Amino acid sequence: MKYAVIGTGAIGGYYGAMLARGGHEVHFLFHNDYDYVCQHGLHVKSCNGDFHIDDVKAYNSTLEMPKVDVVIVGLKTTNNALLPSLLPSLLKEDTIVLLIQNGIGVEDDVQAMFPGVQLAAGLAFICSAKTEPGVVNHQFYGSINIGNYSCRDIKRYEMMLADFEDSGVSVRNVEYNEARWRKAVWNMPFNGMTVVMNTQTSNLLSVPEMRRIVHNQMLEVIHAAWACGVENISENFADAMIKSTLDMVPYSPSMKLDFDFHRPMEINYLYTRPVQIAHNHGFIMHQMQMLEVQLKFLAR
Amino acid sequence: MKYAVIGTGAIGGYYGAMLARGGHEVHFLFHNDYDYVCQHGLHVKSCNGDFHIDDVKAYNSTLEMPKVDVVIVGLKTTNNALLPSLLPSLLKEDTIVLLIQNGIGVEDDVQAMFPGVQLAAGLAFICSAKTEPGVVNHQFYGSINIGNYSCRDIKRYEMMLADFEDSGVSVRNVEYNEARWRKAVWNMPFNGMTVVMNTQTSNLLSVPEMRRIVHNQMLEVIHAAWACGVENISENFADAMIKSTLDMVPYSPSMKLDFDFHRPMEINYLYTRPVQIAHNHGFIMHQMQMLEVQLKFLAR
Repeated sequence: MKYAVIGTGAIGGYYGAMLARGGHEVHFLFHNDYDYVCQHGLHVKSCNGDFHIDDVKAYNSTLEMPKVDVVIVGLKTTNNALLPSLLPSLLKEDTIVLLIQNGIGVEDDVQAMFPGVQLAAGLAFICSAKTEPGVVNHQFYGSINIGNYSCRDIKRYEMMLADFEDSGVSVRNVEYNEARWRKAVWNMPFNGMTVVMNTQTSNLLSVPEMRRIVHNQMLEVIHAAWACGVENISENFADAMIKSTLDMVPYSPSMKLDFDFHRPMEINYLYTRPVQIAHNHGFIMHQMQMLEVQLKFLAR
Repeated sequence: MKYAVIGTGAIGGYYGAMLARGGHEVHFLFHNDYDYVCQHGLHVKSCNGDFHIDDVKAYNSTLEMPKVDVVIVGLKTTNNALLPSLLPSLLKEDTIVLLIQNGIGVEDDVQAMFPGVQLAAGLAFICSAKTEPGVVNHQFYGSINIGNYSCRDIKRYEMMLADFEDSGVSVRNVEYNEARWRKAVWNMPFNGMTVVMNTQTSNLLSVPEMRRIVHNQMLEVIHAAWACGVENISENFADAMIKSTLDMVPYSPSMKLDFDFHRPMEINYLYTRPVQIAHNHGFIMHQMQMLEVQLKFLAR
């Protein structure tokens, strides 16, 4: 299968490079890094061993890229308004678009932009960053959960999962909505609170009262998920998330990095949409809607 | 009646000076300002006309002060641990202690320190600041609500109210618990949110979503009051508070000033205690307990 990566940053760059190293045909869209990558290739500094893609199929416009079987979207959701101009030339009738993006509600909106397209949700469990041009710095983890949103062609969907797996990326096939809410249990408290408190995960958890509030916020997300029909997430999951965060190095979630580097924050899909969706199901996310507004105030 | 003012700052200084100007005998405890006031007296720059008290009965220790009929406590609640050493020498058997202090739960704690003492709650509606030694800067408002907490001597309690009134301070006799919760409707959202968002009241209200959240936080306080048996506060009161704040000049609540000047914040009586008291009545103040912990985190 042919792949295209739209948004070759820390996430798209890593998974695309893994697929390319695995022998798959991957076409990469670059923006600022285009010239550098044409000359020097794409480098992945990885906790599992560095590697280099010499002969990168690099483009600076999707119009020059071939139609592909799978488009991997690694854009920040704050750039999703670009999709109507970026995607169409890549799509065949049966192309799968894999959205490796943050938050809840992304698939609904992208599907509305491209009604017939087969969509899959990708949830990256990875710490990686693009620190220099043409270099992806992969610090730890690296697995991906993929959920079927609107793929009719199940064989192709499964081939995609197999391609990740045989390229050395650990994949789980998941129910997309449960997976999105599960990830929100960690994402919603930590992304916002590290921004508003101007700190890292470890500092939040080092203050017992703050740890209790973060835990309480996680429960709010779990209860919202229940209200939205996702009943498989137990309250214990909050304890597990706190525990695994305590085991991590001090960490700045992506929204904190966006805030620090004056990039737009993904408030819409990380906060506004899940708060709205829960509200539509009769559940008020008191803490998360307050955090949402605090973030919007800081983002002015 | 003889008065003593403990904590001669923006609040105690203003009301004490008004009583002194009204012809009442007022003994003032000073700390840093003592020498200055002994030499230059106490000056009130007031929106209602400046005035000066030449012959201030100034002290720098309560041990040298006479026993009085009414002690006005104008300390920040963060200094209430000083009361057991400051108060006793001023007290006769029937002395009233008027606590012009912020928050909810103060009377309970002071009563526990001084079981027999007659306590009254004072709620100042005033914008004033102590900007220089010996100078109280009274910007606007200036009324006081007073509620009986444990005064047995009702005649003396009413004489105290009359003394304020005839000294030019507008007084209302109120039910102390309702009055405290009513004030919390404004205090809890605005004090904390101006600190966490590092801004002033007017900026918060200029962002429509933030205005909605502040309104929502006010409703949370009103519902907490209901749960605690204070049922006289209608939801319309939140609208009125928003409206009157829009009519104010851009304003930094006392907690914001404390934070900016690296003074301890009154988190305990403004947040921790009301959240606890509501919790004891089966009501969870989701937003206020989150704000409480955000403040504690910033106060580290």
